[in-house]
Amino acid sequence: MGSTERIRQVALRVAKWVRAGHRMVVVPSAMSGETNRLLALAQELSPQALTPAYYRELDMLAATGEQVSSALLAIALQALGLQSVSYAGWQVPIRTDSAYTKARIESIDDARLRADLDAGKVVIVTGFQGLDEGGNVTTLGRGGSDTSAVAVAAAMKADECLIYTDVDGVYTTDPRVVPEARRLHTLSFEEMLEMASLGSKVLQIRSVEFAGKYKVRLRVLSSFTPWDIDIDEEANSGTLITFEEDHTMEQAIVSGIAFNRDESKISVLGVPDKPGIAYQILGPVADANVEVDMIIQNISKEGKADFSFTVHRNDHPKTMELLRNQVVPKLGAMDVIGDTKICKVSIVGIGMRSHAGVARKMFQALSEEGINIQMISTSEIKTSVVLDEKYLELAVRALHKAFGLEAEPA
Amino acid sequence: MGSTERIRQVALRVAKWVRAGHRMVVVPSAMSGETNRLLALAQELSPQALTPAYYRELDMLAATGEQVSSALLAIALQALGLQSVSYAGWQVPIRTDSAYTKARIESIDDARLRADLDAGKVVIVTGFQGLDEGGNVTTLGRGGSDTSAVAVAAAMKADECLIYTDVDGVYTTDPRVVPEARRLHTLSFEEMLEMASLGSKVLQIRSVEFAGKYKVRLRVLSSFTPWDIDIDEEANSGTLITFEEDHTMEQAIVSGIAFNRDESKISVLGVPDKPGIAYQILGPVADANVEVDMIIQNISKEGKADFSFTVHRNDHPKTMELLRNQVVPKLGAMDVIGDTKICKVSIVGIGMRSHAGVARKMFQALSEEGINIQMISTSEIKTSVVLDEKYLELAVRALHKAFGLEAEPA
Repeated sequence: MGSTERIRQVALRVAKWVRAGHRMVVVPSAMSGETNRLLALAQELSPQALTPAYYRELDMLAATGEQVSSALLAIALQALGLQSVSYAGWQVPIRTDSAYTKARIESIDDARLRADLDAGKVVIVTGFQGLDEGGNVTTLGRGGSDTSAVAVAAAMKADECLIYTDVDGVYTTDPRVVPEARRLHTLSFEEMLEMASLGSKVLQIRSVEFAGKYKVRLRVLSSFTPWDIDIDEEANSGTLITFEEDHTMEQAIVSGIAFNRDESKISVLGVPDKPGIAYQILGPVADANVEVDMIIQNISKEGKADFSFTVHRNDHPKTMELLRNQVVPKLGAMDVIGDTKICKVSIVGIGMRSHAGVARKMFQALSEEGINIQMISTSEIKTSVVLDEKYLELAVRALHKAFGLEAEPA
Repeated sequence: MGSTERIRQVALRVAKWVRAGHRMVVVPSAMSGETNRLLALAQELSPQALTPAYYRELDMLAATGEQVSSALLAIALQALGLQSVSYAGWQVPIRTDSAYTKARIESIDDARLRADLDAGKVVIVTGFQGLDEGGNVTTLGRGGSDTSAVAVAAAMKADECLIYTDVDGVYTTDPRVVPEARRLHTLSFEEMLEMASLGSKVLQIRSVEFAGKYKVRLRVLSSFTPWDIDIDEEANSGTLITFEEDHTMEQAIVSGIAFNRDESKISVLGVPDKPGIAYQILGPVADANVEVDMIIQNISKEGKADFSFTVHRNDHPKTMELLRNQVVPKLGAMDVIGDTKICKVSIVGIGMRSHAGVARKMFQALSEEGINIQMISTSEIKTSVVLDEKYLELAVRALHKAFGLEAEPA
């Protein structure tokens, strides 16, 4: 299907909601491939620039992709006989900080949008973009249109924010790894936040954070559902991310299994075991703008400790070099070793709060498959383990089965 | 050449001017074919909409084309080591009326641009677009970037406004018709205005009007000149459109020959010759939004007059129908006849003001070629004739020769 046909389908879907009596604000993303096309043009002209002035122009450039789809959607809605008007981020305005290419929304003025809704119009708000204090265009980073949508829903106090994505909801785990994976009808906001940060790519994590802060009811559903399915069916499709924990929630202890291959493990061996080790190792790492995820420190022997942590795989070479050249000599550590062939697998479930023995069951399931656990990290509603990368699929399948995720909870 | 390569060439040219000590504001147009691509998308979604709400969205859409090239040019300049910043029309702001798709510039705030120039930056102002009183994006119509450039030059009180086009200046006539046509080094503003309105497509007529109103020195030059030619050579290339009539001007009586095939002739025959005929015929035509160009009324015989005028060829069928059905019966005229196979040929020259016999020489030249003149219209600095379309090339060549335009004036 051509790209305008896609926009026409969206317009038909919006019209269905409007004709059922809903007042709609729509936040379209750019047409498929458009953002990449624009950024490639910039890349051709200036492959290596990293200045604020460059990022400012990159945002001016990238913001046009969404403006095109907003205007086209307004036109498509008008062609269906609806009144519609589109606004760029600066017209609303959606105010952000000045962090070009990854700006954060600070406020949204809903006056203009509300007046248009009152006048019977379908309002299109251009996603992914905003306006900083200096009057410059900013963009919100990959998946930023989701965040725009949630932020607009929060500002408008919308009943629900429907996020149409390329999947039909949030699954117990990735169906490409576990064919028995099951779509979740509801998921708590905290679980969604963990799933998003642990590697589930359904929503930009910032959009989930925003939903949490402003208590926006989010529904993740599929943009590939035919526009003309029954509206009640559509209204109950996908996955609802909710704040009402205790009643409508499925009563599973573990709701989902998240995983990723993005990290690498680094161990500093034989560090003299005295106060301040963590700071002396991780201080320089943080100074180099490397984010550290899991951290483990074990006493080894003879007053020496081993210290391990994970970083994003892209940061692996830089971090290794930093440790070898600066940290190890200074600390008097024995060695530093790195392993990029790891994965992280996590079980997530709000039921873990009130159920003992969940982690034990996880370790047992992995043990029965002969999978060695390299690192463990826990929080209130998730347990993560680091494994050899080759065990990823096996581990996820074993855990999915052990926690009975293929079946609807009772 | 790819489109980013073209932008890089523009950046190199701008950098040359900047390094020679000039403070530059640059107004880029959209990348080749981009505006048409965007408008075609709108057309696919809504082929027939003609509402203000539709035109508003069309402007939101079309304005993105120039925003892309502005941001890319800023990036290209930064890659050359220059400081540069781009502004959309609304950021300057360039204020316009609300006539979507053909808005007129009302004011330009130069504060931000001036501060950036003072800070040593090359300022990119996005052409073709503005902001109306209601905070909506507007566009200025085809060729609108020229008008933006002239308006910015006026606001900034620039020394000169360089318009880089796909031709290397203004010619005595179209070189495709007369191979001996000669580039004019200078041309008065009034002559340029006549040339533009008579069919020379070098500049949007509104940009010339704007230059006249604010006395902006315009130079029309070629964007295909290699960027690295000597800067003094470039500074004197093309055609300078000036207000200094009496000294630097070339002393030709006729400066150029303009022509077009856009018009058609309509004659209402046998109209009772009494006061108010013109109004009764042209009133309904104007009410139908048809613009009339040349008008002639002759007494014929027995108290009946013939009344002829020209309209744009696109308006021909509509106008004929209107006259046949409404005007002719009401007036008691004999008939109405139309002719779409005409052309208009004009001689333009500020020297005509002070030289008698110019029109006579024109008529003589046409007569010697056996070309019949159908209508004549004169103004202070131009004489236009309407001819059978088949004589167009012959007439233009004969006039070019008769007025000695192939040779530089003494």
